[in-house]
Amino acid sequence: MKKIVILGSGNVATLLGGALLEAGYDILQIWSRNLKHAEVLAASLHARFTDDINRIDSSADLYLLSVSDDAISSLSERIQAIEGIIVHTSGSTSMNVFENKFSKYGVFYPFQTFSKERKVDFKQAPVLLEASEPGVLAVLKSIALSISTIVLECNSEQRKVLHIAAVFACNFSNYMYIIAQKLLQENRLDFNLLRPLILETANKVQNFMPEDAQTGPAVRNDFATVNSHIKQLENRPDILAVYQLLSDQIISKVSKH
Amino acid sequence: MKKIVILGSGNVATLLGGALLEAGYDILQIWSRNLKHAEVLAASLHARFTDDINRIDSSADLYLLSVSDDAISSLSERIQAIEGIIVHTSGSTSMNVFENKFSKYGVFYPFQTFSKERKVDFKQAPVLLEASEPGVLAVLKSIALSISTIVLECNSEQRKVLHIAAVFACNFSNYMYIIAQKLLQENRLDFNLLRPLILETANKVQNFMPEDAQTGPAVRNDFATVNSHIKQLENRPDILAVYQLLSDQIISKVSKH
Repeated sequence: MKKIVILGSGNVATLLGGALLEAGYDILQIWSRNLKHAEVLAASLHARFTDDINRIDSSADLYLLSVSDDAISSLSERIQAIEGIIVHTSGSTSMNVFENKFSKYGVFYPFQTFSKERKVDFKQAPVLLEASEPGVLAVLKSIALSISTIVLECNSEQRKVLHIAAVFACNFSNYMYIIAQKLLQENRLDFNLLRPLILETANKVQNFMPEDAQTGPAVRNDFATVNSHIKQLENRPDILAVYQLLSDQIISKVSKH
Repeated sequence: MKKIVILGSGNVATLLGGALLEAGYDILQIWSRNLKHAEVLAASLHARFTDDINRIDSSADLYLLSVSDDAISSLSERIQAIEGIIVHTSGSTSMNVFENKFSKYGVFYPFQTFSKERKVDFKQAPVLLEASEPGVLAVLKSIALSISTIVLECNSEQRKVLHIAAVFACNFSNYMYIIAQKLLQENRLDFNLLRPLILETANKVQNFMPEDAQTGPAVRNDFATVNSHIKQLENRPDILAVYQLLSDQIISKVSKH
C-alpha cells in the first residue's frame, strides 16, 4: 500500500496530501477541475497532475476524493476502471455514495479544521474511518495510523452527528471570534487583546467539560449586565440577535455551578 | 504598596488573590457576605476574613472589589474610612461608580476567563487599568505589571466594548462547545473527539485573523450540507435556531477566500 491519487486541491486535499507524503506514501497524481490548482498542489507533493478525469492513473492503491460534498457523487460516477480503494473525506456524505460503483470503498474523515496556510498537527487529529469490508478497513487503518494517533471506526450516521457538532465547536466558535473582532475594530481596539482569552477558553475544556467551564453574565444570571450589553448593541441588529438568542439559551439551559 | 484587602470570594477574587500573593503582596483580609467562602479563600491566601463590612481593615494600600456587578455600587457605599486605593475588577461597570465616595479609585480588569478549579497563566492575561488620577494609575500599573506582561490603560467605554467582545469570544464560544457536547452525548460519542478541533480552532486565530480562519459548509456556501444539517436538527428547535441564525450570518457576512 504505497501509491495514492488525490482528487481535489482544497484545504483537506492539501494538508492530508502533505501528511501522507511525510508518512512515506507516494502521491502519484493530483486531479482538480482547475488545472492550475492541480499543478500547484502536485508540485508540493512531487506528483503528476491533470484536470481530465479520464486520465486518472489506474495503478494507485488508494483514491482520495477531497472535493466539495455535492461534487462527490457526480465525480465518482466519472471515474473509470480503477482497482484500488476509493474513499471520500467528507463528514456529511454517506459511504453509500460509492455503492454499486466500486468494489472497495470507504470514508477517511480527518476530524479537524484545515486552512491551507497553516500546517496542522495531524497526530492530534482524530481520523474517522468507515469501510465497505473488513479488508478495506484494515488498509485504511494502517494508513490513518501512519499520520494520526487517534483512529476510530465510525458509521455514516455517527459521522454526520460529529460533523454537525464540529460546525458548532469550530465554525460557529470562529464566527463568535469574528463578531468580537468587529466590535474591537470599530472601537480601534487591538484583536491581540482577545487572543489570550480565546486560547484559555479552548484550553479550559481540554480538561473540563464545557458545562463546568461556562462563565459570563448570562450563566451568572447577571441581568443588569446582560441588559446593558443589549442596550449597547441596539444599533447592531445582527450582532444583537446573536447576543439575545445565546444569552437566553445560556440563562435557561446551562446550570449554574 | 504591599497590603491588599479583597472584597469578594468568587472566581476573579480567588485567582487574582493567588496571583497577587505569589507576586509578593500581603493579602490582609478577605471580606465576603458568605463567611464560609471568606474563610476558605482567606485560608489559601494566609489572610484574615470577615463578613462584616464595618470591620474592613482600614490600613490596606489597595481594596480590590471583586463582587458581582450589581453589588459594586451598594457595597462600596458601605465601606467606611479607608485611605487606600479602591478598585473594582468588572468589565462592564464604569469607574464613576466610586466618584464622590472615595478620593483614590480606579479599575483593575483582568481580561481573561476564570474558573476557580483552574489555575490561569496571568502573565498572558491583559490587565486593563483606569484610574482617578495619574498617581493612582502609576500604583495600579506597578501592581498589574507584577502579575502580567500585558498592561494597558483603557477607559470605561472601551472596557465595556471589550467586555461585550469577550462575551462573544469566550462565553458564547464555550456555549457552542456545550451544544456540540450535547449532540455527541446523545449519540454516545466521546467529547474527547472534539477537543483537538476546539484547540486548533483557537490556535488558528493566534496568528490569523478570524475572518481568514473561517471554515465549514456555510462559508463555502455548501447549501446541500447546510440543509442536510437543518433537516437532522428538526427535532431540536433550540439547537436548530442557533444553527440557522449563525449559518445565515456566515453566508451573508463572511467573505470567502
